[in-house]
This record gives sequence, structure tokens and C-alpha cells, in this order.
Amino acid sequence: MMHLFLRTLTATTAIAAFAAPALADEGMWTFDNFPSAKVRAAYGVDVTPAWLDHVRNSAVRLSTGCSASVVSAEALVLTNNHCVAGCAQDLSSTANDYYTHGYVADRRQKEAKCPGMQAEILTSISDVTPRVTATGKGLTGDALVRARTAVSSTIEKEGCTDTATTRCQVVNLYHGGQYKLYKYRKYSDVRLVLSPGVQTAFFGGDPDNFNFPRYDLDSAFVRLYEDGAPVAAPDHLRWNATTPVAGQPVFVAGNPGGTDRQLTIAQLETQRDLTLPVTALQYSELRGRLIRFGEQSAENRRIAQDEMFGLENSYKVFYGRLMALNDPAFLATKRAEEAALKARIPALRSKLGPNFGDPWQTIAKAQGELRSIYLARRQVETGPTGSDLFRYARALVRAAAERDKPSAERLPGYSDSALPLLQKTVLDVKPIHPELEQQLLEFWLSKTREYLGADDADTKLLLGRDSPESLSARLARSRLGDPAYRKALWDGGSAAIRASDDPMIRFVARIDPEARRLITAYNEKVEGPITDAAEKIARARFAAYGTNTYPDATFTLRLSYGKIAGWNERGTAVPPLTYTRGLWERATGEDPFKLDDRWLAARNTLNPNTVFNISTTNDIIGGNSGSPLINARGEVIGAVFDGNIHSLGGDYGYDPALNRGVAVSAAAVSEALRKVYRAPAVADELEAR
Amino acid sequence: MMHLFLRTLTATTAIAAFAAPALADEGMWTFDNFPSAKVRAAYGVDVTPAWLDHVRNSAVRLSTGCSASVVSAEALVLTNNHCVAGCAQDLSSTANDYYTHGYVADRRQKEAKCPGMQAEILTSISDVTPRVTATGKGLTGDALVRARTAVSSTIEKEGCTDTATTRCQVVNLYHGGQYKLYKYRKYSDVRLVLSPGVQTAFFGGDPDNFNFPRYDLDSAFVRLYEDGAPVAAPDHLRWNATTPVAGQPVFVAGNPGGTDRQLTIAQLETQRDLTLPVTALQYSELRGRLIRFGEQSAENRRIAQDEMFGLENSYKVFYGRLMALNDPAFLATKRAEEAALKARIPALRSKLGPNFGDPWQTIAKAQGELRSIYLARRQVETGPTGSDLFRYARALVRAAAERDKPSAERLPGYSDSALPLLQKTVLDVKPIHPELEQQLLEFWLSKTREYLGADDADTKLLLGRDSPESLSARLARSRLGDPAYRKALWDGGSAAIRASDDPMIRFVARIDPEARRLITAYNEKVEGPITDAAEKIARARFAAYGTNTYPDATFTLRLSYGKIAGWNERGTAVPPLTYTRGLWERATGEDPFKLDDRWLAARNTLNPNTVFNISTTNDIIGGNSGSPLINARGEVIGAVFDGNIHSLGGDYGYDPALNRGVAVSAAAVSEALRKVYRAPAVADELEAR
Repeated sequence: MMHLFLRTLTATTAIAAFAAPALADEGMWTFDNFPSAKVRAAYGVDVTPAWLDHVRNSAVRLSTGCSASVVSAEALVLTNNHCVAGCAQDLSSTANDYYTHGYVADRRQKEAKCPGMQAEILTSISDVTPRVTATGKGLTGDALVRARTAVSSTIEKEGCTDTATTRCQVVNLYHGGQYKLYKYRKYSDVRLVLSPGVQTAFFGGDPDNFNFPRYDLDSAFVRLYEDGAPVAAPDHLRWNATTPVAGQPVFVAGNPGGTDRQLTIAQLETQRDLTLPVTALQYSELRGRLIRFGEQSAENRRIAQDEMFGLENSYKVFYGRLMALNDPAFLATKRAEEAALKARIPALRSKLGPNFGDPWQTIAKAQGELRSIYLARRQVETGPTGSDLFRYARALVRAAAERDKPSAERLPGYSDSALPLLQKTVLDVKPIHPELEQQLLEFWLSKTREYLGADDADTKLLLGRDSPESLSARLARSRLGDPAYRKALWDGGSAAIRASDDPMIRFVARIDPEARRLITAYNEKVEGPITDAAEKIARARFAAYGTNTYPDATFTLRLSYGKIAGWNERGTAVPPLTYTRGLWERATGEDPFKLDDRWLAARNTLNPNTVFNISTTNDIIGGNSGSPLINARGEVIGAVFDGNIHSLGGDYGYDPALNRGVAVSAAAVSEALRKVYRAPAVADELEAR
Repeated sequence: MMHLFLRTLTATTAIAAFAAPALADEGMWTFDNFPSAKVRAAYGVDVTPAWLDHVRNSAVRLSTGCSASVVSAEALVLTNNHCVAGCAQDLSSTANDYYTHGYVADRRQKEAKCPGMQAEILTSISDVTPRVTATGKGLTGDALVRARTAVSSTIEKEGCTDTATTRCQVVNLYHGGQYKLYKYRKYSDVRLVLSPGVQTAFFGGDPDNFNFPRYDLDSAFVRLYEDGAPVAAPDHLRWNATTPVAGQPVFVAGNPGGTDRQLTIAQLETQRDLTLPVTALQYSELRGRLIRFGEQSAENRRIAQDEMFGLENSYKVFYGRLMALNDPAFLATKRAEEAALKARIPALRSKLGPNFGDPWQTIAKAQGELRSIYLARRQVETGPTGSDLFRYARALVRAAAERDKPSAERLPGYSDSALPLLQKTVLDVKPIHPELEQQLLEFWLSKTREYLGADDADTKLLLGRDSPESLSARLARSRLGDPAYRKALWDGGSAAIRASDDPMIRFVARIDPEARRLITAYNEKVEGPITDAAEKIARARFAAYGTNTYPDATFTLRLSYGKIAGWNERGTAVPPLTYTRGLWERATGEDPFKLDDRWLAARNTLNPNTVFNISTTNDIIGGNSGSPLINARGEVIGAVFDGNIHSLGGDYGYDPALNRGVAVSAAAVSEALRKVYRAPAVADELEAR
């Protein structure tokens, strides 16, 4: 499970009708292009280069799909509980369910390593656009995609010679308008310090997810380690637990996972017509299966709970995005936006060169190809949702084959710059539950047969004369749950893979040629043509609107600005702040509105007027989860963990009247640390006492 | 569960670009407007008034959502196995699973009454258009809907004074272009004679559903009884088990449940954007829950199997329809069709009168209202999918209240003409499974909270401070599974309902005012305006294209014509006939491709070259299940049980190149009756020996 956490929601109408200028508070800005003047004018806050450096040096990206920030000199890191829930799940057992009840390391020795988690702090951004775009010249289709993969791999390898402590990534911004090398200081040993547990952090559960008013203590702490000791943090944000105030300017530094604001209408229609419905429908059925699976026993519920959360969260995101695209007014705005840019093209022809052609038409044509290849690629290449056994086998089989080639010739994700994190996620110790694996695999095989058809060649390749039920049972008996066996296969490379009689290894090796064929076909007919056309549209956009714009999100560090504010929901004002007292009112005693015993016990000691959750105008999306909410002085006053329901449409456009981010306040966290979790050491460290 | 069975599928492009004339083989024609001349020209077959009367007098509608035909003088009735599967399920117990293994009554005494099933034979059609349309004059919104309900109720009451043996229904054809009184001879005692069981009748299961080539013996027999004895059938179709031939002209007489070919683009967009995705998403999750529920134990699987079939079948239909509407080329054809009719309006103004206005705009506006009320109405008024306890309670609570009013003032479905069948479906004895009920209710309550939101007034009305899990457990303990208790409540009327402390009765009574408020609001803002506007569009269509057209399907008797033919699937010819030998090849031994022991035992006695299933060009849709496939001489040569995958888009338009109906041959049925089911008496009766 590699979710890009945080959740953005069904917008309606008033999104930016034209790509530039950005609306008030709109934008997920890169740190090398932040609109400081605009912020100064709007909010009177001076975002200086020093301010930006300080925040960037304290902002953390978690490889598990979240954002975070360093909040102490000893590298204590604030993030969301739902960002460490997978870790708590992996550390749990039948006897100790840390996912549900939380985890409090009351001394350093109990801080526990999170499997697969790596923390990354951005140290530099450099422009590599000319080198990348020159590489593709004259190439098309799969050849273009491969050339770009190769040059990126080479740039990354040159940029990060010390792969033990650094990570380099070439990032595509503005859909090919710019390519930049992002260099990170990385920390591969991240340990869990404190998780409040899901009852409190996710109070209200799926029903309240993406809703507001809200009462979630969705915060958690991890710590960065190196050589077995906490890291001396080069920089950190100061903790400010004073009461937040409506209207106060606030900033969010984090890694929004992805937005689709600059896609063409044809691309949005493909999402609306095919990819979103199919994904939501499949998630919906899997969700149903896992709900019933969890109802069968307490242990089933325990082993499936983190998968369940991710699934329900993603489902709600897909549903919200689908409903945004299905809103006629919303799509009309997007159409007007595209038409406005197209109307500028004739005047820009000389600037755009003789080969500009009609890139929108190229992308529309590629959508036809995408529609015909989508289901096969989804089922065979993307593979089963949530199965760790399949993920291990795929990584082991491919890494073995790819490592036999030079780095620049490998599949994306297997270059020398990418391998260390892949290796970590394959080899780190974590529990595997064959019963759950069997469910996930059965579901996947059964949907493959359903969506491709029983007589389809890919279905036959996967199933042969087996049923999804019998094949999944056999695959779930794989030995890949044993980390020693995974290490032997990783170290043994191609020879070890060939020699393995593990059912999952054999299965994945058997389907891999077809999966690779689908990658190539997709590159040739979809990815390649779109890469070229999108670069042209990006150039047109720069020519028409200049570069004072922000690129679509790419799970790289961005800064958004805004203020603490509610919104108007069909005539009713939604206030921006909630208070502890509201938590007591909302608790029914029935899941998911059931309070944790520790909270019930502490009730009389807690200030009913502490600000609990905060709604802000910041432009955020999935991947921003755990981002620090920062005041004008650069201090952390909360952690963003959600958006309101309207923010789901934010994938396609920001509506200043309705899109809101949602954060938990530092004030509530501080009070809970002392009074509920009895973790004064953490509170003292935060407050630098 | 009241499914309109049979299954139509994702079409593509070549549907009728204009409403008239109908394309080759297109049309679900009423018996009083059949295009005999056209058929004579195309196929050289003379469909005489006598031919039509003979077929109409033999064609049966089953109240459970299917079609059928009388095939012997002693009222033996041919239908599909999936049309009697609910009956087999209701007759089953833990010890005897007739649903799975089939049911063979080897003597009359073993023919077993099917709960809730009524058979109806159409005896006359009369035009009541002037009376109905005159009634609404000057009224709008809810008042218009109520006036129309009242006049229909009155016409029906006048038409059928003997409600013990007749049923009258006023049918809206052409979306208000015509209103006709359909009068039926009804048979309330329908008994199961032979069901081959699901392994054979639904060989290939959900994966093969709506696909072809196919090998399903989806046929079954029931018999009509009156006063404890088989009815002497006034007419019946002769059985012809000779080999069907490609290209042979064939007819289908049955009750297509509903099509949406004459809806406006705005209405189709509402389906595409909202109602189809939400329905498919909910069905998908429920399906997942029930799959896992069934995997828990053999008994769970048994009690959920018929519900599961209906759910998966409907899901596939909704998915197919969604993909048809999501196909840009398909919707473009529909847009062109609407534009063509609109272009004729200026020239027709004088004919259409001064108040014609813009009915398309009226309907578009009503779609906005529909979008805003849809989710509440769906969750609160439509209620839980599949729950018999809820269905009983809703019928009992409403029937008690409505019977206190004059027939013409009641809700639709509670008039004097409608009550006898309602009473039968409430009082007939059938097993109720509380564990399954709890699952269905929990799902419904949980989706209500999800789709309306935890803070919504309707959610609060339903749940209070309960959780879906706890409330559903309490409701599933209802005593309504006891038929004596239901009878006491039915007979006791309002006083008995008020006095009942049954949890489901109390729950349904508590939410009923809100459910009724939603009906009224829907009538006022959606149903009323659309009724008026659709009648105007129907008049315009008649004015432009004449009345030699067919109306959208309405689960009333229709005749379609065509021929035995395959189609071309992306360059590959699909032959129209399958043979018994193909069944042996397709069987893998794994569900759902696992053959029944009886078939395995009989394998060497069966002719491998018997025609098994047949693809035809007939225009059919859900509700046509069980329809006789008739040759030029009016003999039955098979039973329609499915459409191919392209027929799913047939809801919106017929594509002669791709839409196909699928039938099981009489030849295969005859052979199986003698050699597999050892039911020579049934075979002899069919062959009139």
C-alpha cells in the first residue's frame, strides 16, 4: 500500500476560469517561484528568502506518501496519525493493537522503526530542462519515453553520488514545461514516537472523513535516526500552541501528491468516463468484501484495518472527483479555460514554432488508445490493490532482470537512484497476513476475469483453467512473507529468481513479459504522444500567461498560503474553528463516534475551549497529509490532515469560496500530550523546555 | 427482490440516428401496431391478425419480472430458469437446495406453488388517451401527478370488476403520447414443474453473463393452476425441437421491462452523471459484502445465492449502460437524434399549439431538481435493496393507511386494482433469513449515512444515535418473517399497525412521513413537470414521424422480429449457434465452469451436435427473460434468456450490427428433459405425444 495521503474534494463552479492569474489563495507553489509580493499585498506577511529556506529545511517528505516537519533539535517529526498508522499496524500483533489503541514511546528505547518509511528533506532545486528536452528531439512513442527515462536516470545518478544519505529525482513540472533536479537529504531509519490511535485520530471515521466541523487529533510523531541515534536536526520549526484566530494568515509546506488542473478536456473526459468509474467501482466491491471480512472476527478486523482505511479514503476521493467532473457547471468552466488558451494560439504561432500543430488533438487521439488499453494495463500491469506478496514478487522479479542492464536502460523505478528505496521497502521486516492476501488476490483475479472477459487472452494467461478462488489460495501460500527469503532472492538476482519454486514468484515471472508488453504499448500509443503534446501546451501556456504560475502537484515540496476561514455551505456559515467541547457532544458511544477510554478518563481535566480542528483556505491535496500549518513567523501551529468535501474537486481546480484544508491544532496536541497520553517528555521537547 | 430480468449491453455507435424509421429488426412493437408489411418485405413472413392473436393468447407475463409462454393444453409454461430461481430458493431449505441442484416434479402432486408469483395473459388493449390527458389539463407538479394517478385508478377499477381473475393496468406509452388500458387474465397459483438448477442453467455464471458463445440451459417450466387443478389453457404455442438454422426469421413475444430511447439528452446525462454511478457503486459494495458473506459458510452461500445473482446481473446491466453513455460516439448519435427532432419544431408549431414552449428546457430544469433530491429519495423512499422485512413493513404500513382512503386518492401501487397482487406478495409464505436481512439493512443504513452525510436530517431520522450495525441487528429481529403475523397486520389495518411493537413496523412507520414528503417533493419538482413536457415531445415526435414507431418498453407485451445471426466482434465473426460439444470444452471443473453431476453422467448419451444456444437480431431487454423464441409458423423453438454484451446499451438505442438476443434452443431442452432430467412426461407433454 503506497497511498498518497490526504484527500481533496468535490468542487463546484467558481474555479479559476483561466490558467492565470491564480485566484486568491490558490496555488501549490514551488519554493523557487513563490509569489511573495502577492502574499505581502494580500496578508502583509513578508515571506523572505531566509523564511523560505528555514521552512524548506524543516519540511519533510515521507516515502509512504505523506508530508511532515522537523519540530525539535533532536529530529522529532510531526506528521498525521494516518501517516504512521501503517507503521503502527506493522508493529502490532494479535496481543498489541497499536493501530487502534495508539503507541506511546515513553523512553527513547521504545521508539520503534517503521518498516519501509524513509524521510526526505529537500536541499536543492536545479533546472535541467534544456538537457531533458534536447534528449527527446525527433523521437516519438516508446522511444521518446525510454530516452527521457534514460536521461533522467543519468542526471539523478550524477547528482547524487552518495546514495546512502542523498536521493535525487528529476521532476516533470507543468507537464513538461520544466524539468528540475530535486535533491534530498534522506533518512532511512524513521522511528515511531507517538501515535494517539485511530479512535481519536480518526474520530468519526469514514462518515466524517472530508467533512467539517471535525474533531480529529490526527497528529503523530516520529524521529529521524542515523547510526542508531537521533539525528541532530540541521533546522526545525518552532512549536506554537497558542490559540489560532480566524482570519490569521497561514502557510502549508508539504508535498501535494498530484493534481490534474492542467490536463486537457479530453484527458478529463477519459477520467470521467472510464478510469474514475472503474477504479471507484472496483474499490467499492473490495471495500464490501473487506468490511464483511473484518466483521467475521476481531483478528480479521485488526489485520485488515489499515488497508480498509486506505481503501475507504481513496474511494471517497475518487467518488468526489467523479462527481466534480460529472457536474456540468464545473466541466463548463474547464472547457472555457481550454478554449481561452486555444484562442491565444494564432497570435502566438511565431513564438511556438512551425511544428506546434494541434497538441490537443494529439492528446485526444491518445485517449482513444488509452481507452482501449486501460483495462488490460490496469489488471495485468498495475496488479492487485494492497497485496504485499504481489508487490514483493513484482519488485524482486523485475529488479533481478533490470539490474542486469545499465541503469539508464532500466524500467522507471529500477534505476540506480531509485533502487535503494525499493530495496528498503522489499526487505524491511513487516507482518504478512495470508488470509488477507488471499482476499485481495481473489478479488483482483476475479475482477480481471470480469472486466477483461473470461475468453480474453490476458485472463487466460493469469488464470489458465484455475478459478480466482483456487489460484489466490495457492498464491497466498507464498514464502515471500519471510524477510530472509526476500533477502536471499534480492541478493541472488536473476539466478535466484529462476531457481525459486515460490508460487507467487513463478506466477509473477510468468505474467511479466505480457505486463512489459503492455508498458511498451502504453508508452508507444499513449505516454509518448502525450509527453510531446503536453510539452507543447506547456510552452503555449507560458507564452500566453508567463511563468508566474504554479505547476500541477507532483508529490514534491510546495508552499501554499491562505488564512484561517470557514465557508458558506448553501447559505449557512461554517465556522473555521472547532473546540474540545464539540468532541464530547459528537460522541454517541457507537463506532466510529466512540471515544477512547483515555479521553473519557481525562475529560474533566481538558479545557473545553481549546481549539481542536481548523479550516483554512490553503490549496492542498492528497500527499499534503502531515504538512505543518505555519504562522507568519514560521512557527508550526498545527498539522494539515484533510480537506473539506469541496476540496475533492480541487484535483481539477481551486474554488476560493469553497475549497478548504483542515488541520489539527498544536494547542490540542500539546494539551493531549500532557493530559491524555501522559507524554510530558514529548511536550517538553516540542516546547523546548 | 423484484428484478426485471434479462440483460441488455454496451452498444457503440450505429444506433438509429433519427427516431423514425426504425432500423432493420429494430423495435419492441405493441401487438396493436405491429409492422407486418415491413416484416413481409424483409423476411417473407406473413404476420396475420390470427398469428398475432394466437401468440398474444399464449404469451405470459410473470409478476416476478419475467416473460413466458403457454406450451401445452394443460397450461405448462416455458420460461427461464433464472425466472423461477427465486421460487426454487423459496422452496429450499438447508437440507434441500433446489436453487443449486434443480427441481423436477416427476408427478403433478410435486408441482409446488411459487410464493408471490402471478401469471398474466393479455386479453385486450383499449385506448384511453383522451380521458387521461383531459384529466391533467391546467394542473402542474404534484397536483398533475395525483390527478393522473386518480384517473388511472378509476379506469382500471371500471375495466376489471372481477379482480379475482382479471387485472387492469393503464399503461403510459411513448412517454405520454398514448395511454392504453391493458387487461389481463390472471393466474395467482403458479407452480414449479422443473428447474434444471443454476449450475447448468447459469453455466459460466457472472463471467459469462451477457456474453456469447454461451452454453446455458436457462429454461424452466411452471404450470398454471386454479382451484387446485391445472388450468385448461385457452391457447398455447406448439413446441418445435428441430434444429434452428442461421438466417431463419424469428420472433420474440415478451415484456421488455423498460428502455430509455426516447429520453432527452438532459435525462440521459442525469443517468450518466448521477443515478447510474451511484447505483452501480452501491451495488458493487453490496456485492462485495455478500460475496464474503457467502464464503463464510455453505449455508450463508445458500441463503444469499438468489439475491447475489440478481445483484450481479443488475450490476452488469448498470455498468454496461454507464459505459454506453460514457462512449462519446454513442452520446453524439443521441444528440444528433434530439437535434433533428428539435429542428422540425418550427415547421410544426401550428400543429403543436401555442403552449408548446420548450419542453426540453423544462425537462432539463427538472433534472437540476432531480439531482438535488435524488440521494435522499433513493435512500429514504426507495429503501434497502433486497430486504423482505423492510418490503413487508413498508407495504403493511402504507396499505393500512391507504386503504382508509378512496381508491383514486391513494398512492400509486395501493389502488383497488393494484392491491390484490400486493397482498399476495406480502402474505405468501416464504423463508426469511435474519442474518442476510441484517447484512442488507446494515449496508443500506451505512450507505445512507455515507451518501447523505452523518449530519443530514434524514440520516439522523433513520439512525438517531444508533450505528448502522446496531440498528440493523435490532430490525432483523422483526417478527415479519412469520406469515401469520403479516396476515394479522394486513387484516388489522391501521389499528393493528399502530398497536404493533415490531421493531421494523415501528421503524418504517416512523420514517414514513418523511418518505411521503419526498414523494410529494419529487412529484412537484420532477415528475409533474416531466410528465407535461414529455407529452409535448411525444406529440412533436408523432407530428414529425407519424405513429408507425414503437414506444419505449414498459414491461408490457411486445413483439420483436429478426433472424438467427451472429455478429462481427472487432473483425472476428461470432457464429450464431453453439452446440452441446462446446459445453464439454468450456467446463474447467472449477465454479462457475463446473458441470452438474447429472450432465457428466449423461455425457455419452447426448448428441454433441445439438444446437444449445442461439444468437438473434431481435430487439430485447431486461423483462424479456423467458420470452418464447418463435418461428414463422408461430411455434416455439427456444426461450430468450439474455442479450450479448452490446445489448446493454440497447437501453438507449438499438444497433443492428451489434445488438443481439440470446436464447436456449428447444432442441437442447427436449434432449435434456429426456436424457438428463429423466422427465419424459414433461417432454411428452411438450411434444403432445
